Amino acid sequence: MNKQLESFISANKRRIDEVLPQTVQNLSMPAALKESMLYSIEAGGKRVRPLLLLAAFQSYQESRDNVVQAACAVELIHTYSLIHDDLPAMDDDDYRRGKLTNHKVYGEAHAILAGDAMLTRAFELLAELPDTSDHSKVMLILELSRAAGAEGMVGGQVADMEGEKSTLNLQELESIHHRKTGDLLGFSIIAGGILAGAPEEDLSKLRAFGRELGLVFQIKDDILDVEGDSIEMGKPAGSDENKDKSTYPKLLSLEGAKEKLSWHAEKAKEYAGQLNGKSEILTEFVEYIQHRTK
Amino acid sequence: MNKQLESFISANKRRIDEVLPQTVQNLSMPAALKESMLYSIEAGGKRVRPLLLLAAFQSYQESRDNVVQAACAVELIHTYSLIHDDLPAMDDDDYRRGKLTNHKVYGEAHAILAGDAMLTRAFELLAELPDTSDHSKVMLILELSRAAGAEGMVGGQVADMEGEKSTLNLQELESIHHRKTGDLLGFSIIAGGILAGAPEEDLSKLRAFGRELGLVFQIKDDILDVEGDSIEMGKPAGSDENKDKSTYPKLLSLEGAKEKLSWHAEKAKEYAGQLNGKSEILTEFVEYIQHRTK
Repeated sequence: MNKQLESFISANKRRIDEVLPQTVQNLSMPAALKESMLYSIEAGGKRVRPLLLLAAFQSYQESRDNVVQAACAVELIHTYSLIHDDLPAMDDDDYRRGKLTNHKVYGEAHAILAGDAMLTRAFELLAELPDTSDHSKVMLILELSRAAGAEGMVGGQVADMEGEKSTLNLQELESIHHRKTGDLLGFSIIAGGILAGAPEEDLSKLRAFGRELGLVFQIKDDILDVEGDSIEMGKPAGSDENKDKSTYPKLLSLEGAKEKLSWHAEKAKEYAGQLNGKSEILTEFVEYIQHRTK
Repeated sequence: MNKQLESFISANKRRIDEVLPQTVQNLSMPAALKESMLYSIEAGGKRVRPLLLLAAFQSYQESRDNVVQAACAVELIHTYSLIHDDLPAMDDDDYRRGKLTNHKVYGEAHAILAGDAMLTRAFELLAELPDTSDHSKVMLILELSRAAGAEGMVGGQVADMEGEKSTLNLQELESIHHRKTGDLLGFSIIAGGILAGAPEEDLSKLRAFGRELGLVFQIKDDILDVEGDSIEMGKPAGSDENKDKSTYPKLLSLEGAKEKLSWHAEKAKEYAGQLNGKSEILTEFVEYIQHRTK
């Protein structure tokens, strides 16, 4: 990994890992709920979405506390979606990031409710952002609700479940990934721009960048699922393939998927290069996601 | 039911029943998701929360379209909570309002996701409210997230589940009901005040009114569960008692519960009477909830 990105990630990931539990810790709620929320929040992960939000923000300004809080909101959404996806009624996964899934530890009811509470808390965090205009808060909440809801992530999850019943073509697969993964990554990027007061023309470039990055992320995920090492991945390699699921390597061959990965990575870097802000960290992020090994 | 309240409910309920499905109908999402969301949205119900929001608003101003949209947001939160509560991992209910529960028709995965999508959509509706200042939108979103999240409804639900394991005293039972039912009713009331631009002193009266009304609602629910007719209730009478659950009649005797119901109803009407706005509809609402037979 590039040195500049490495120091960006190490400094900012530490800050996210520190603030994220506080967004739940300080609330008054039943101990059982807090424990199950904190369990998943502290289960680790790459924190890609909050880091992207901070990276987009820092293309325009030095980091501030309200930005870390917004970054935690997007990670709460991501974490809730994992808890609900892992449930027996959905993917029925026992392990996530090498640890037992939430419902395996706390039971299904608590896992469902911990997810509901995180989703709700994310909107509260945005509405509570310090040093942020009401106008920016409303923009952020609009963007997040669209990215995370029926037209975005939740809709993508349903389309993905429906898609498992049939063979998808590339366009259908892409549409699912845009919603299931891309929209929330895209939100992270554009939220950084909104908070930094980026010019209107940059917001649409950031949106386009986020869309491409989402595909890079997903195609790489599919490739890793074929090639990856199950210990590094925290789940068995080939687990998607076992389920007869449509993936990029399956539709395009492994070589074709790799070519497509490079194409979207180039496209993302092109959009980053067109920003009025600095684009180094965003560009290096694309390469990091493109070349990651887990 | 009082004539004035009857005409208020009949006119406004019709409007809610008309607008509520549109808040989902017009979105682009997988057909399976839309169908399961609409199923629960159109399953009927008394629409108490949105009606209360409109009633509080109309204490100050004539109804407007943005207010109906906010009213739909609170009904979406209520509906999502019912879908998740009915799941096998929670209350495991097959029927709701005399119809099969969402997961019995669409399966658990779709029911979980339909709930997630409704919760998210509620915040989007508030952020999208027409003719509303950004400041009011942020206030509404803050109030809703607090009322519906870990410190409010979701926390109340967890406390309720934990409480089933032991015998509760009155204070514990009350605290659960405040969160599980009262906070969202309270939000409905205060949201009407915020949208109408009610004076600051009225907002705290509206909040207190909402808290009392929440107890009236819950105590009456417990009484109906002992006395009610299973056809009118849409669920078997005595179903809570069967589960050895703490209820007001159990802790206070049926007579004691009825006295407490009257006391909180009086208290609610007292707060309503202190408003600068008109209080007739709110007062009549208390009596309606206090005396309802289902």
